[in-house]
Amino acid sequence: MDQTFNWLLEASRIAAALQERILASEDVADFLAELARHAADTLSGAGSEVYCSVTLLRDKNRISSAGSGEQSLYMDETQYKCGGGPCLYAAQTHVLIDVPEVDKEPRWRSYLDLVRDTGVKAILGVPFNLEGNATGALNLYATRAHAFDNSAPLIALYAEQASLSLRLALRMGELAEMKEHLAAAMESRTAIDIAIGILMAENRCDQEQAFSILRRASSNRNAKIRDLAAEIAGSVAGKPVQTYFKP
Amino acid sequence: MDQTFNWLLEASRIAAALQERILASEDVADFLAELARHAADTLSGAGSEVYCSVTLLRDKNRISSAGSGEQSLYMDETQYKCGGGPCLYAAQTHVLIDVPEVDKEPRWRSYLDLVRDTGVKAILGVPFNLEGNATGALNLYATRAHAFDNSAPLIALYAEQASLSLRLALRMGELAEMKEHLAAAMESRTAIDIAIGILMAENRCDQEQAFSILRRASSNRNAKIRDLAAEIAGSVAGKPVQTYFKP
Repeated sequence: MDQTFNWLLEASRIAAALQERILASEDVADFLAELARHAADTLSGAGSEVYCSVTLLRDKNRISSAGSGEQSLYMDETQYKCGGGPCLYAAQTHVLIDVPEVDKEPRWRSYLDLVRDTGVKAILGVPFNLEGNATGALNLYATRAHAFDNSAPLIALYAEQASLSLRLALRMGELAEMKEHLAAAMESRTAIDIAIGILMAENRCDQEQAFSILRRASSNRNAKIRDLAAEIAGSVAGKPVQTYFKP
Repeated sequence: MDQTFNWLLEASRIAAALQERILASEDVADFLAELARHAADTLSGAGSEVYCSVTLLRDKNRISSAGSGEQSLYMDETQYKCGGGPCLYAAQTHVLIDVPEVDKEPRWRSYLDLVRDTGVKAILGVPFNLEGNATGALNLYATRAHAFDNSAPLIALYAEQASLSLRLALRMGELAEMKEHLAAAMESRTAIDIAIGILMAENRCDQEQAFSILRRASSNRNAKIRDLAAEIAGSVAGKPVQTYFKP
């Protein structure tokens, strides 16, 4: 009962802390770094320091990772170089990977031999539960063998809360990205649309025909449509085109 | 200790449930409705049904409200009509308003007389802790006097979690709105920019001068700039303008 009580106290603190970190983060990368630091602080137990990293796999081969310090980033990078390891495996397969003794684990030996040299004796890869094509894992490294044996329920609870917060951070990140893409598209579209209008007036043609003229000229001259459009608009105006819409 | 334990168990469930509801909601209004329903389910105690509503005040006089049922929506609407009541007061002043006996409360009498007729005997208005200009409150109505006397800690804890989730929902809502505004602006800007290009070519002038011509014509003819631009572009092309960018 006492232990459960402590976990619950921890759970409500963790939930609040992670939500506050989403609100304070500038983007997904920023939140991943905060998450890795918060996980290391929360899950470091007595007698063993815990390094923590977060791996996030999005779409095709879009890997993001963040660590609580240099050690954990080294573990992650080495894992990618060696072509695999417990944490990448957890992220890819949604299976919790427990390596209580790095020395005795038969899998991923080329990676684990390098890890052993840094003093890491136990590794835990806990998969996140995300949406869409995104997968990921919370990666914990300890300098003591069997360091995670007694904290499995707390770690599972942490990963559950972190999954929810990460989903929210990813949704917000997607919305922010779409907004930025639209704003960027609007910048380049002003010049293109004005150039289309000029070509329509000069050639008495419709929008599609004007765009074909622009595209052909861009291909013949090996210039970007956007740059050519700015040139056409600028040559009529006698000065560069402005985007006067402020999003 | 047992009571504290239960609250913590509740807290971690609430945090997860509210975050899941943000993810499942289409927009802020949808989330407010989910929040009101979830609060009513969570806070309904033994011996008294609890109606719940959520009031959100944004910018200048932008009021949103959602209720767990018809009763709570009636309470809110009546409160706006009567020019004030405990819940609106809590939302506006950030102060928790406790009305354990509707009959004995000297303030807001015109509103409370109407409320009494519906069988409501106790009201609690709990302010949210939000960002920027947004304020709001969780409004609880019970059919038993003093219904909220023993659940103050749970309710405070609920409002704390709800505040965090509401902040996240509002941030996501803002991003989604900005994205929609940009997409809508893009729609009307295509026609305007093409018309500006046509006017530039026909008058050998720059962008600002072309826009002035468009604006003067719009004012003279009492037509919207967007409509006039579409007409100009359509008259050269012989057909309506398309927005070929799909956001």
